[in-house]
Amino acid sequence: MMKKNLTYAVVGTGGIGGYYGGRLAEMGHEVHFLFHSDYEEAKRNGLKVKSVKGDFHIKEVKAYESTAAMPKVDVVLVCLKTTSNHLLCELLPPLMHDETVVILVQNGLGIESELSEMLPQAKIAGATAFICSSKIGPATVEHAQYGELTVAPFGDCPTDVLKQVCEDFAASNVPAYFSDNLDLIRWRKLVWNIPYNGLSVVMHASTDELMECKDSRELIVALMTDVVRGAKACGVEIRETYIQKMLDFTDAMTPYLPSMRLDYDAGRRMEIRTMYENPVETAARNGYEMATTRAVMQQLSFMEWKEKR
Amino acid sequence: MMKKNLTYAVVGTGGIGGYYGGRLAEMGHEVHFLFHSDYEEAKRNGLKVKSVKGDFHIKEVKAYESTAAMPKVDVVLVCLKTTSNHLLCELLPPLMHDETVVILVQNGLGIESELSEMLPQAKIAGATAFICSSKIGPATVEHAQYGELTVAPFGDCPTDVLKQVCEDFAASNVPAYFSDNLDLIRWRKLVWNIPYNGLSVVMHASTDELMECKDSRELIVALMTDVVRGAKACGVEIRETYIQKMLDFTDAMTPYLPSMRLDYDAGRRMEIRTMYENPVETAARNGYEMATTRAVMQQLSFMEWKEKR
Repeated sequence: MMKKNLTYAVVGTGGIGGYYGGRLAEMGHEVHFLFHSDYEEAKRNGLKVKSVKGDFHIKEVKAYESTAAMPKVDVVLVCLKTTSNHLLCELLPPLMHDETVVILVQNGLGIESELSEMLPQAKIAGATAFICSSKIGPATVEHAQYGELTVAPFGDCPTDVLKQVCEDFAASNVPAYFSDNLDLIRWRKLVWNIPYNGLSVVMHASTDELMECKDSRELIVALMTDVVRGAKACGVEIRETYIQKMLDFTDAMTPYLPSMRLDYDAGRRMEIRTMYENPVETAARNGYEMATTRAVMQQLSFMEWKEKR
Repeated sequence: MMKKNLTYAVVGTGGIGGYYGGRLAEMGHEVHFLFHSDYEEAKRNGLKVKSVKGDFHIKEVKAYESTAAMPKVDVVLVCLKTTSNHLLCELLPPLMHDETVVILVQNGLGIESELSEMLPQAKIAGATAFICSSKIGPATVEHAQYGELTVAPFGDCPTDVLKQVCEDFAASNVPAYFSDNLDLIRWRKLVWNIPYNGLSVVMHASTDELMECKDSRELIVALMTDVVRGAKACGVEIRETYIQKMLDFTDAMTPYLPSMRLDYDAGRRMEIRTMYENPVETAARNGYEMATTRAVMQQLSFMEWKEKR
């Protein structure tokens, strides 16, 4: 099959969408960006990315305020927080032709099947991003470390497009890998997300503090073990050595506030449902009670409840 | 056996020692009080207790700065925080004759056997206090609610003295009960202490907030269940209905900051070792992993570590 150039849309141009979409645009791909509050700034001054792998500036960024104004594309990269996923049934259809692939570059579990229930015709994939990247100003992103992307199909999503997406990224300075096991990549990412996101909020701490204290480090290991066992109950085998790999990865990380902590500090809703509730309940249905994870989930829910009052 | 009047010493005259010792002194019993920073105030103006069961003022309180200056007594009520229990091997001998009974009116597990290792000749008992009482000023205590005391012997401690102590309390406006199962009363008290003390610190919340939010209430039940199962592994049967009883008890309670929260807020060490580590490790040795309780323990330890920096 002759390859055609894929066209892209980024839904949610923040720390993740701005970086990954920006890298593709920088390399000359056609990328259309949905902005929210930063639309005017993006129109005026473009999209700026300060990156450890080299800064870049998309001056003539294809910026939109609404997906209704955007063209149909081959690939949609959904980079919203999952707390906004209920909006996707409205946001996505204007972007979709019959073969469009929607890739959820998000955290959590079960989000692809939730989207599939909303849009049964959609071809859906998931991607996990190991990256320290955040929005530091209007239409301005700072990429501090890492950046690896792993993409996997949901259901009958065509894999050739996903592999081409990985090639496009790899040629755009983003290490990107195709996986044929979506559940595996989702659970593997949770091994990192569940301890660090939750504890950074509940303990009001950065990753380096949590790693330095013996007791919080033990709790991190307990949570990671909980996730590995939850995954196993769901038929997903994660090697025990992966826990040590994640600890080493975090030890090597610049002191960092995970996204949930940034959300909490900014008064935004936290991704408790997709990042905690979905895995805890899925594991429970499969016979494993993620007791330690559930406790952190309940603490996060309490904090959100208290904030809302 | 002809009963003689028991003489008492209170080691640690704070919210607990000031109230219970004060009630005995008010009723005419000979009670000697060890004060720390409040000694001068107690000498000058006595011990003041504001109590929901009636205020009282022990004007001529028998106040001391050191146990070396105190007489030997029949009964020592140890009302220190357990974080000071390593001092007991120095503090207690001056107060003890051959028949002296030392009653630990404290929280936690395993504290009587720890004391027994320090002072092998001592006759030791434990007591649990269900009371909302705290020091609100120098030599001044506020008793807000409840007050029930349960006393149980450790090892070969003579039970007749303990029963007389209960009678002395009962006649002094303090409901007091004798139990022959120290492990049972210690674990029962932990059913309350472990959820409310720890979560009040980690969640920075009062009991009423923790009870009102559905998620923290579920976490409280999970922790209580963890304690009941830990106890069961150690051969201590607590009925499931006791959990509901503790929830009802706390629902009826005036909004309250448990002692561990007061300790944390005041920069004092928390009773993590005796209230969390001892039960968690004891249950683990008996084959039950108190996973949820251990998580809260690790969170408290992290907070103490962070404070100390």
